[in-house]
Amino acid sequence: MKYIQSAQNRQIKQWKKLLTKKERDKTGTFLVEGFHLVEEAIKADVALEIIVCEGGELPPHMDYGSISLTTVTPEIFRELSDTETPQGVLALCEAQKEVEELKGKQFLLIDAVQDPGNLGTMIRTADAAGMDGIIVGHGSVDIYNPKVIRSAQGSHFHLPVVRGALKEWMEKLLAKNIPIYGTSLENGQIYTEISPSPSFALLVGNEGSGVDPDLLQKTTKNLYIPLFGKSESLNVAVAAGILLYYMKA
Amino acid sequence: MKYIQSAQNRQIKQWKKLLTKKERDKTGTFLVEGFHLVEEAIKADVALEIIVCEGGELPPHMDYGSISLTTVTPEIFRELSDTETPQGVLALCEAQKEVEELKGKQFLLIDAVQDPGNLGTMIRTADAAGMDGIIVGHGSVDIYNPKVIRSAQGSHFHLPVVRGALKEWMEKLLAKNIPIYGTSLENGQIYTEISPSPSFALLVGNEGSGVDPDLLQKTTKNLYIPLFGKSESLNVAVAAGILLYYMKA
Repeated sequence: MKYIQSAQNRQIKQWKKLLTKKERDKTGTFLVEGFHLVEEAIKADVALEIIVCEGGELPPHMDYGSISLTTVTPEIFRELSDTETPQGVLALCEAQKEVEELKGKQFLLIDAVQDPGNLGTMIRTADAAGMDGIIVGHGSVDIYNPKVIRSAQGSHFHLPVVRGALKEWMEKLLAKNIPIYGTSLENGQIYTEISPSPSFALLVGNEGSGVDPDLLQKTTKNLYIPLFGKSESLNVAVAAGILLYYMKA
Repeated sequence: MKYIQSAQNRQIKQWKKLLTKKERDKTGTFLVEGFHLVEEAIKADVALEIIVCEGGELPPHMDYGSISLTTVTPEIFRELSDTETPQGVLALCEAQKEVEELKGKQFLLIDAVQDPGNLGTMIRTADAAGMDGIIVGHGSVDIYNPKVIRSAQGSHFHLPVVRGALKEWMEKLLAKNIPIYGTSLENGQIYTEISPSPSFALLVGNEGSGVDPDLLQKTTKNLYIPLFGKSESLNVAVAAGILLYYMKA
């Protein structure tokens, strides 16, 4: 096990940069924090390195295999951590490879969602609903943003989460006869008019402006969730949950 | 219109204290921030006072009637504000009166939810789903916490949101023949086995530990949402949305 005491250490400086999207993209790696996520990363075989705070503990009963372990001082750990009350363990993980194709018949497409909690919650929900993959459009918050990762609670390790141009992905899905359901409060039809199906893609959009109108024109149908009370809209992650579980029922 | 320049002003000091639950409870008032929420407060006739940042604007086309207006310096405004990019307008609002009874047949019961975003999103979702009221148990985050209010996007002004002992409220609902459905991953039945109904109460619980087992023993039935993928659970606000909309369908 390595032991690093200096915040000036080249390795520490590089890990610290992973708090930025730029460095995560450049290296194809990201950090996850806390027992649960570190365990999930190890199970998914994407943990490259474990970083433990001096005096801290490793998740027990795990097979660390050839994963290298590094202990750092509490001061350095705080610099690498993105949480207020760190659990003292981080894993450096390999990001998912960008792909051109996805297997399966059920997908969630996400257009320009800005809030990391919303994106992470949707990744978690799509996993729970058994989706075969998630496609996140370019205008969204980074899928490896630390808050996205925390909200997703490990679902990044459970299913393909890819970034790409939604227009191109939609063409690919439609070419495979997978119907795409957009979400729109205007000019849509009530979601309960659609029947649950083993093959579908759901497209949800930005918290304020919804799905890009250009994309809505390319969908199979556009759906809305009725508002029975006085609220003007639903949170996007809640809406995605309602629609994904309806389509699965 | 009053104009206050001194942060030592007695009124400013008192408004600033409203960032604490203690003061909100003591005075039965709370602050909301931003154009949308201030407008909603005025429409709901619960705005007691509007506070504008010097150089800022009031929501246009509103009937301010007898609501008093106070302008404050940007420095004071920042002290009263709970947001990073304030819109320059606040409303002092009257909190909902505590009640012993609620009219209607559809309710959301919330046990010990800790995250303000989750509580606010559930208030918004229950409003959207047309619930007749929300009962928030004592172990939950304060319903007038600024982050709860932001996440609820004005739904506090649309339906009764009351605080109370869930055990007692459950007894009252059951006495009125309103079935109560708890949520539990263990010993529950799949939610789709229940039929949508014009009369029901849904009980959801803490993010980590779920609903208090003592409360689960007093429900009509306990339900779970199946997990088709590898995620271990759903976000509580997403789960509430899925179940409320299922029961309404």
